[in-house]
Amino acid sequence: MELSAPVRGTGADAAAAAARRVIAGLMRAGDISGADMDEIAGRLNAIADDLDATAPELQERMVDMWRGDGRTRHDAVAGTENPLAPPLDYAPGPDGSITAEVVLDLPYQGPPGCVHGGISALILDHTLGVANGWAGVSGMTAELTLRYRHTTPLFEPLTVTGRQVSVDGSKIRTVGSISAGGRECVTAEGLFIAKHPPRPR
Amino acid sequence: MELSAPVRGTGADAAAAAARRVIAGLMRAGDISGADMDEIAGRLNAIADDLDATAPELQERMVDMWRGDGRTRHDAVAGTENPLAPPLDYAPGPDGSITAEVVLDLPYQGPPGCVHGGISALILDHTLGVANGWAGVSGMTAELTLRYRHTTPLFEPLTVTGRQVSVDGSKIRTVGSISAGGRECVTAEGLFIAKHPPRPR
Repeated sequence: MELSAPVRGTGADAAAAAARRVIAGLMRAGDISGADMDEIAGRLNAIADDLDATAPELQERMVDMWRGDGRTRHDAVAGTENPLAPPLDYAPGPDGSITAEVVLDLPYQGPPGCVHGGISALILDHTLGVANGWAGVSGMTAELTLRYRHTTPLFEPLTVTGRQVSVDGSKIRTVGSISAGGRECVTAEGLFIAKHPPRPR
Repeated sequence: MELSAPVRGTGADAAAAAARRVIAGLMRAGDISGADMDEIAGRLNAIADDLDATAPELQERMVDMWRGDGRTRHDAVAGTENPLAPPLDYAPGPDGSITAEVVLDLPYQGPPGCVHGGISALILDHTLGVANGWAGVSGMTAELTLRYRHTTPLFEPLTVTGRQVSVDGSKIRTVGSISAGGRECVTAEGLFIAKHPPRPR
Protein backbone atom coordinates (compact mmCIF):
# COMPACT_ATOMS: atom_id res chain seq x y z
CA MET A 1 0.00 0.00 0.00
CA GLU A 2 1.14 3.53 -0.65
CA LEU A 3 0.82 5.61 2.53
CA SER A 4 0.14 8.83 0.63
CA ALA A 5 -1.19 9.34 -2.84
CA PRO A 6 1.24 11.73 -4.55
CA VAL A 7 -0.40 15.02 -5.50
CA ARG A 8 -0.56 15.55 -9.25
CA GLY A 9 -0.13 19.14 -10.40
CA THR A 10 -2.65 18.75 -13.21
CA GLY A 11 -6.12 17.40 -13.95
CA ALA A 12 -8.55 16.56 -11.15
CA ASP A 13 -5.95 17.20 -8.43
CA ALA A 14 -5.22 20.71 -9.76
CA ALA A 15 -8.95 21.47 -10.00
CA ALA A 16 -9.48 20.24 -6.43
CA ALA A 17 -6.59 22.39 -5.18
CA ALA A 18 -8.10 25.43 -6.91
CA ALA A 19 -11.54 24.59 -5.48
CA ARG A 20 -10.00 24.52 -1.98
CA ARG A 21 -8.71 28.06 -2.57
CA VAL A 22 -12.24 29.12 -3.60
CA ILE A 23 -13.80 27.50 -0.51
CA ALA A 24 -11.35 29.22 1.84
CA GLY A 25 -11.77 32.49 -0.06
CA LEU A 26 -15.56 32.35 0.22
CA MET A 27 -15.32 31.73 3.96
CA ARG A 28 -12.86 34.61 4.37
CA ALA A 29 -15.22 36.86 2.36
CA GLY A 30 -18.73 36.19 3.65
CA ASP A 31 -20.97 39.10 2.75
CA ILE A 32 -18.47 41.79 3.81
CA SER A 33 -15.82 41.55 1.10
CA GLY A 34 -15.39 43.84 -1.87
CA ALA A 35 -16.33 41.00 -4.22
CA ASP A 36 -19.68 40.84 -6.01
CA MET A 37 -20.79 37.51 -4.56
CA ASP A 38 -23.67 37.09 -6.99
CA GLU A 39 -21.22 37.46 -9.89
CA ILE A 40 -18.92 34.91 -8.17
CA ALA A 41 -21.92 32.58 -7.81
CA GLY A 42 -22.63 32.97 -11.53
CA ARG A 43 -19.08 32.02 -12.51
CA LEU A 44 -19.16 29.00 -10.17
CA ASN A 45 -22.53 27.86 -11.52
CA ALA A 46 -21.15 28.10 -15.07
CA ILE A 47 -18.26 25.81 -14.09
CA ALA A 48 -20.71 23.39 -12.45
CA ASP A 49 -22.85 23.42 -15.61
CA ASP A 50 -19.79 22.56 -17.73
CA LEU A 51 -18.83 19.73 -15.36
CA ASP A 52 -22.38 18.35 -15.37
CA ALA A 53 -22.56 18.48 -19.18
CA THR A 54 -19.39 16.42 -19.59
CA ALA A 55 -19.67 14.05 -16.60
CA PRO A 56 -19.21 10.30 -17.04
CA GLU A 57 -21.91 7.89 -15.88
CA LEU A 58 -21.85 7.54 -12.08
CA GLN A 59 -21.12 3.80 -12.24
CA GLU A 60 -18.20 4.39 -14.60
CA ARG A 61 -16.76 6.98 -12.20
CA MET A 62 -17.30 4.65 -9.20
CA VAL A 63 -15.29 1.91 -10.89
CA ASP A 64 -12.60 4.45 -11.85
CA MET A 65 -12.25 5.94 -8.37
CA TRP A 66 -11.91 2.53 -6.70
CA ARG A 67 -9.49 1.11 -9.28
CA GLY A 68 -6.15 -0.35 -8.14
CA ASP A 69 -4.99 -1.72 -4.83
CA GLY A 70 -3.27 1.35 -3.38
CA ARG A 71 -4.64 4.44 -1.70
CA THR A 72 -7.75 5.93 -3.17
CA ARG A 73 -7.60 9.63 -4.09
CA HIS A 74 -11.14 10.78 -3.35
CA ASP A 75 -11.79 10.78 0.43
CA ALA A 76 -12.64 13.90 2.44
CA VAL A 77 -9.48 13.89 4.58
CA ALA A 78 -6.47 12.88 2.48
CA GLY A 79 -8.05 12.71 -0.98
CA THR A 80 -6.10 14.82 -3.44
CA GLU A 81 -9.16 14.87 -5.76
CA ASN A 82 -11.60 15.97 -3.03
CA PRO A 83 -11.97 19.73 -2.39
CA LEU A 84 -13.34 18.96 1.11
CA ALA A 85 -9.99 17.38 2.13
CA PRO A 86 -7.29 19.73 3.52
CA PRO A 87 -5.70 17.21 2.28
CA LEU A 88 -3.59 15.40 4.88
CA ASP A 89 -0.31 13.90 3.64
CA TYR A 90 0.79 11.07 5.94
CA ALA A 91 4.36 9.99 6.65
CA PRO A 92 5.42 6.83 8.50
CA GLY A 93 6.83 7.02 12.02
CA PRO A 94 9.47 4.75 13.56
CA ASP A 95 6.95 2.87 15.75
CA GLY A 96 4.48 1.84 13.06
CA SER A 97 2.50 5.04 13.52
CA ILE A 98 1.59 7.51 10.79
CA THR A 99 1.70 11.29 11.11
CA ALA A 100 0.55 14.30 9.12
CA GLU A 101 1.02 18.02 9.67
CA VAL A 102 -1.82 20.34 8.69
CA VAL A 103 -3.01 23.92 9.18
CA LEU A 104 -6.80 24.42 9.03
CA ASP A 105 -8.64 27.59 8.06
CA LEU A 106 -12.19 28.96 8.44
CA PRO A 107 -14.05 26.19 6.56
CA TYR A 108 -13.17 23.85 9.45
CA GLN A 109 -14.17 26.18 12.31
CA GLY A 110 -16.26 25.12 15.31
CA PRO A 111 -15.94 27.46 18.33
CA PRO A 112 -14.44 30.86 17.49
CA GLY A 113 -10.89 30.38 16.17
CA CYS A 114 -10.99 26.65 16.90
CA VAL A 115 -11.36 23.50 14.83
CA HIS A 116 -14.89 22.03 14.85
CA GLY A 117 -15.05 18.97 17.13
CA GLY A 118 -16.72 17.05 14.32
CA ILE A 119 -13.91 17.94 11.92
CA SER A 120 -11.42 16.54 14.46
CA ALA A 121 -13.58 13.40 14.58
CA LEU A 122 -13.58 13.16 10.78
CA ILE A 123 -9.80 13.57 10.61
CA LEU A 124 -9.15 11.05 13.39
CA ASP A 125 -11.56 8.40 12.06
CA HIS A 126 -9.80 8.57 8.71
CA THR A 127 -6.31 8.64 10.22
CA LEU A 128 -7.02 5.55 12.32
CA GLY A 129 -8.23 3.81 9.16
CA VAL A 130 -5.06 4.74 7.27
CA ALA A 131 -2.95 3.60 10.26
CA ASN A 132 -4.69 0.22 10.01
CA GLY A 133 -3.95 -0.03 6.32
CA TRP A 134 -0.32 0.89 6.98
CA ALA A 135 -0.10 -1.82 9.67
CA GLY A 136 -1.42 -4.36 7.18
CA VAL A 137 -4.89 -5.18 8.56
CA SER A 138 -7.67 -2.68 7.99
CA GLY A 139 -11.44 -2.65 8.22
CA MET A 140 -14.55 -0.64 8.87
CA THR A 141 -15.16 1.51 11.94
CA ALA A 142 -17.39 -0.24 14.49
CA GLU A 143 -16.92 2.14 17.42
CA LEU A 144 -15.05 5.40 17.80
CA THR A 145 -14.55 7.38 21.01
CA LEU A 146 -13.19 10.90 20.98
CA ARG A 147 -12.01 12.85 24.01
CA TYR A 148 -11.66 16.60 23.68
CA ARG A 149 -8.98 17.74 26.12
CA HIS A 150 -8.19 21.24 24.87
CA THR A 151 -9.55 23.35 22.06
CA THR A 152 -7.78 22.71 18.74
CA PRO A 153 -6.60 25.96 17.13
CA LEU A 154 -7.21 27.08 13.55
CA PHE A 155 -4.36 28.81 11.67
CA GLU A 156 -1.60 26.89 13.54
CA PRO A 157 0.30 23.70 12.65
CA LEU A 158 -1.45 20.59 13.96
CA THR A 159 0.11 17.15 14.25
CA VAL A 160 -2.24 14.26 13.51
CA THR A 161 -1.11 10.74 14.40
CA GLY A 162 -2.57 7.23 14.32
CA ARG A 163 -1.24 3.85 15.40
CA GLN A 164 -2.67 0.35 15.35
CA VAL A 165 -2.57 -1.16 18.85
CA SER A 166 -3.80 -4.73 18.40
CA VAL A 167 -5.48 -7.22 16.11
CA ASP A 168 -7.55 -9.98 17.76
CA GLY A 169 -9.36 -12.09 15.20
CA SER A 170 -11.38 -9.59 13.17
CA LYS A 171 -11.21 -6.93 15.92
CA ILE A 172 -8.71 -4.15 15.34
CA ARG A 173 -7.90 -1.52 17.99
CA THR A 174 -6.33 1.74 16.96
CA VAL A 175 -5.53 5.04 18.66
CA GLY A 176 -4.71 8.52 17.48
CA SER A 177 -4.51 12.16 18.43
CA ILE A 178 -4.42 15.73 17.24
CA SER A 179 -1.82 17.95 18.92
CA ALA A 180 -0.91 21.61 18.72
CA GLY A 181 2.38 22.98 20.05
CA GLY A 182 3.17 19.63 21.65
CA ARG A 183 -0.12 19.46 23.58
CA GLU A 184 -2.77 16.79 22.87
CA CYS A 185 -6.04 18.48 21.98
CA VAL A 186 -8.14 15.47 20.93
CA THR A 187 -7.50 11.76 21.40
CA ALA A 188 -9.33 8.90 19.70
CA GLU A 189 -9.79 5.18 20.29
CA GLY A 190 -11.31 3.09 17.57
CA LEU A 191 -12.57 -0.47 17.23
CA PHE A 192 -12.54 -1.63 13.63
CA ILE A 193 -13.83 -4.87 12.10
CA ALA A 194 -11.66 -6.43 9.41
CA LYS A 195 -14.11 -6.49 6.54
CA HIS A 196 -14.46 -4.48 3.35
CA PRO A 197 -17.46 -3.89 1.14
CA PRO A 198 -16.74 -4.98 -2.44
CA ARG A 199 -15.19 -2.41 -4.78
CA PRO A 200 -17.38 -1.41 -7.72
CA ARG A 201 -16.59 -3.11 -11.05
CA MET B 1 -32.42 30.78 19.13
CA GLU B 2 -33.33 30.08 15.54
CA LEU B 3 -33.11 26.32 14.87
CA SER B 4 -32.18 26.81 11.23
CA ALA B 5 -30.61 29.79 9.53
CA PRO B 6 -32.81 30.55 6.52
CA VAL B 7 -30.96 30.13 3.22
CA ARG B 8 -30.53 33.40 1.34
CA GLY B 9 -30.71 33.12 -2.43
CA THR B 10 -28.05 35.77 -2.96
CA GLY B 11 -24.62 36.81 -1.75
CA ALA B 12 -22.40 34.43 0.22
CA ASP B 13 -25.14 31.79 0.49
CA ALA B 14 -25.62 31.73 -3.29
CA ALA B 15 -21.85 31.52 -3.85
CA ALA B 16 -21.59 28.66 -1.34
CA ALA B 17 -24.47 26.81 -3.05
CA ALA B 18 -22.72 27.19 -6.41
CA ALA B 19 -19.41 26.03 -4.88
CA ARG B 20 -21.19 22.89 -3.59
CA ARG B 21 -22.27 22.15 -7.17
CA VAL B 22 -18.65 22.55 -8.31
CA ILE B 23 -17.35 20.25 -5.55
CA ALA B 24 -19.88 17.52 -6.42
CA GLY B 25 -19.20 18.02 -10.12
CA LEU B 26 -15.44 17.65 -9.65
CA MET B 27 -15.96 14.44 -7.68
CA ARG B 28 -18.30 13.08 -10.35
CA ALA B 29 -15.74 13.98 -13.04
CA GLY B 30 -12.35 12.87 -11.71
CA ASP B 31 -9.94 12.51 -14.59
CA ILE B 32 -12.36 10.62 -16.84
CA SER B 33 -14.86 13.33 -17.81
CA GLY B 34 -14.99 15.23 -21.08
CA ALA B 35 -14.04 18.45 -19.26
CA ASP B 36 -10.59 20.01 -19.58
CA MET B 37 -9.72 19.90 -15.89
CA ASP B 38 -6.69 22.18 -16.25
CA GLU B 39 -8.94 24.81 -17.82
CA ILE B 40 -11.45 24.30 -14.97
CA ALA B 41 -8.58 24.72 -12.48
CA GLY B 42 -7.61 27.97 -14.19
CA ARG B 43 -11.14 29.38 -13.90
CA LEU B 44 -11.33 28.37 -10.22
CA ASN B 45 -7.92 29.92 -9.46
CA ALA B 46 -9.07 33.15 -11.12
CA ILE B 47 -12.12 33.25 -8.81
CA ALA B 48 -9.87 32.54 -5.79
CA ASP B 49 -7.54 35.36 -6.88
CA ASP B 50 -10.51 37.77 -7.08
CA LEU B 51 -11.72 36.69 -3.63
CA ASP B 52 -8.25 37.08 -2.14
CA ALA B 53 -7.83 40.54 -3.67
CA THR B 54 -11.06 41.84 -2.13
CA ALA B 55 -11.06 39.96 1.20
CA PRO B 56 -11.66 41.81 4.48
CA GLU B 57 -9.13 41.53 7.31
CA LEU B 58 -9.46 38.15 9.06
CA GLN B 59 -10.35 39.74 12.41
CA GLU B 60 -13.09 41.83 10.79
CA ARG B 61 -14.55 38.69 9.21
CA MET B 62 -14.30 36.79 12.52
CA VAL B 63 -16.33 39.47 14.29
CA ASP B 64 -18.82 39.49 11.40
CA MET B 65 -19.33 35.72 11.30
CA TRP B 66 -19.93 35.49 15.06
CA ARG B 67 -22.24 38.51 15.23
CA GLY B 68 -25.71 38.14 16.78
CA ASP B 69 -27.16 35.66 19.22
CA GLY B 70 -28.82 33.23 16.83
CA ARG B 71 -27.43 30.45 14.72
CA THR B 72 -24.16 31.11 12.98
CA ARG B 73 -24.09 30.57 9.21
CA HIS B 74 -20.56 29.29 8.67
CA ASP B 75 -20.15 25.79 10.14
CA ALA B 76 -19.28 22.70 8.05
CA VAL B 77 -22.58 20.87 8.67
CA ALA B 78 -25.49 23.31 8.61
CA GLY B 79 -23.70 26.51 7.57
CA THR B 80 -25.40 28.07 4.57
CA GLU B 81 -22.21 30.07 3.85
CA ASN B 82 -19.89 27.03 4.02
CA PRO B 83 -19.40 25.00 0.81
CA LEU B 84 -18.29 21.99 2.92
CA ALA B 85 -21.75 21.79 4.55
CA PRO B 86 -24.44 19.72 2.73
CA PRO B 87 -26.06 21.89 4.48
CA LEU B 88 -28.40 20.27 6.99
CA ASP B 89 -31.66 22.11 7.71
CA TYR B 90 -33.03 21.12 11.12
CA ALA B 91 -36.68 21.01 12.17
CA PRO B 92 -37.98 20.55 15.72
CA GLY B 93 -39.61 17.25 16.77
CA PRO B 94 -42.45 16.81 19.30
CA ASP B 95 -40.14 15.42 22.02
CA GLY B 96 -37.55 18.18 22.10
CA SER B 97 -35.47 16.47 19.45
CA ILE B 98 -34.30 18.00 16.21
CA THR B 99 -34.26 16.29 12.82
CA ALA B 100 -32.85 16.94 9.37
CA GLU B 101 -33.20 15.04 6.11
CA VAL B 102 -30.20 14.95 3.78
CA VAL B 103 -28.89 13.09 0.73
CA LEU B 104 -25.09 12.88 0.45
CA ASP B 105 -23.05 12.49 -2.75
CA LEU B 106 -19.48 11.48 -3.66
CA PRO B 107 -17.62 14.18 -1.66
CA TYR B 108 -18.78 12.44 1.52
CA GLN B 109 -17.87 8.86 0.50
CA GLY B 110 -16.03 6.40 2.74
CA PRO B 111 -16.43 2.74 1.71
CA PRO B 112 -17.73 2.29 -1.85
CA GLY B 113 -21.20 3.81 -2.13
CA CYS B 114 -21.31 4.58 1.60
CA VAL B 115 -20.95 7.68 3.77
CA HIS B 116 -17.48 8.07 5.35
CA GLY B 117 -17.60 7.10 9.04
CA GLY B 118 -15.83 10.35 9.87
CA ILE B 119 -18.45 12.36 7.98
CA SER B 120 -21.15 10.65 10.06
CA ALA B 121 -19.14 11.64 13.15
CA LEU B 122 -18.91 15.25 11.93
CA ILE B 123 -22.64 15.41 11.24
CA LEU B 124 -23.57 13.83 14.58
CA ASP B 125 -21.22 15.96 16.68
CA HIS B 126 -22.74 19.06 15.16
CA THR B 127 -26.32 17.79 15.44
CA LEU B 128 -25.88 17.00 19.13
CA GLY B 129 -24.55 20.51 19.63
CA VAL B 130 -27.56 22.04 17.86
CA ALA B 131 -29.89 19.82 19.90
CA ASN B 132 -28.29 21.25 23.04
CA GLY B 133 -28.82 24.78 21.83
CA TRP B 134 -32.43 23.97 21.00
CA ALA B 135 -32.93 22.52 24.51
CA GLY B 136 -31.56 25.73 26.01
CA VAL B 137 -28.22 24.61 27.50
CA SER B 138 -25.31 24.07 25.15
CA GLY B 139 -21.55 23.71 25.44
CA MET B 140 -18.42 22.20 24.00
CA THR B 141 -17.90 18.52 23.23
CA ALA B 142 -15.91 16.74 25.95
CA GLU B 143 -16.47 13.14 24.82
CA LEU B 144 -18.22 11.63 21.84
CA THR B 145 -18.83 7.94 21.19
CA LEU B 146 -20.04 6.69 17.84
CA ARG B 147 -21.33 3.19 17.10
CA TYR B 148 -21.50 2.10 13.50
CA ARG B 149 -24.27 -0.48 13.18
CA HIS B 150 -24.83 -0.61 9.43
CA THR B 151 -23.21 1.13 6.49
CA THR B 152 -24.80 4.51 5.73
CA PRO B 153 -25.74 4.81 2.05
CA LEU B 154 -24.85 7.67 -0.29
CA PHE B 155 -27.49 8.88 -2.78
CA GLU B 156 -30.45 7.99 -0.47
CA PRO B 157 -32.42 10.10 2.02
CA LEU B 158 -30.89 9.99 5.50
CA THR B 159 -32.63 11.09 8.69
CA VAL B 160 -30.34 12.78 11.23
CA THR B 161 -31.67 13.35 14.75
CA GLY B 162 -30.36 14.68 18.05
CA ARG B 163 -31.91 15.02 21.50
CA GLN B 164 -30.63 16.33 24.82
CA VAL B 165 -31.02 13.68 27.51
CA SER B 166 -29.91 15.39 30.72
CA VAL B 167 -28.20 18.39 32.26
CA ASP B 168 -26.34 17.82 35.55
CA GLY B 169 -24.43 20.91 36.66
CA SER B 170 -22.21 21.75 33.72
CA LYS B 171 -22.46 18.21 32.27
CA ILE B 172 -24.79 17.79 29.34
CA ARG B 173 -25.65 14.40 27.86
CA THR B 174 -27.02 14.17 24.36
CA VAL B 175 -27.80 11.38 21.90
CA GLY B 176 -28.37 11.19 18.19
CA SER B 177 -28.48 8.93 15.17
CA ILE B 178 -28.34 8.69 11.40
CA SER B 179 -30.95 6.40 9.84
CA ALA B 180 -31.69 5.24 6.32
CA GLY B 181 -34.97 3.62 5.33
CA GLY B 182 -36.03 3.45 8.99
CA ARG B 183 -32.87 1.59 10.08
CA GLU B 184 -30.31 3.15 12.44
CA CYS B 185 -26.90 3.19 10.75
CA VAL B 186 -24.88 5.21 13.28
CA THR B 187 -25.69 6.22 16.85
CA ALA B 188 -23.90 8.79 18.97
CA GLU B 189 -23.63 9.63 22.65
CA GLY B 190 -22.04 12.87 23.67
CA LEU B 191 -20.90 14.50 26.88
CA PHE B 192 -20.76 18.26 26.61
CA ILE B 193 -19.50 20.84 29.10
CA ALA B 194 -21.56 24.02 29.42
CA LYS B 195 -18.94 26.59 28.53
CA HIS B 196 -18.32 28.74 25.50
CA PRO B 197 -15.16 30.45 24.29
CA PRO B 198 -15.71 34.20 23.91
CA ARG B 199 -17.00 35.45 20.57
CA PRO B 200 -14.59 37.69 18.67
CA ARG B 201 -15.26 41.43 18.95
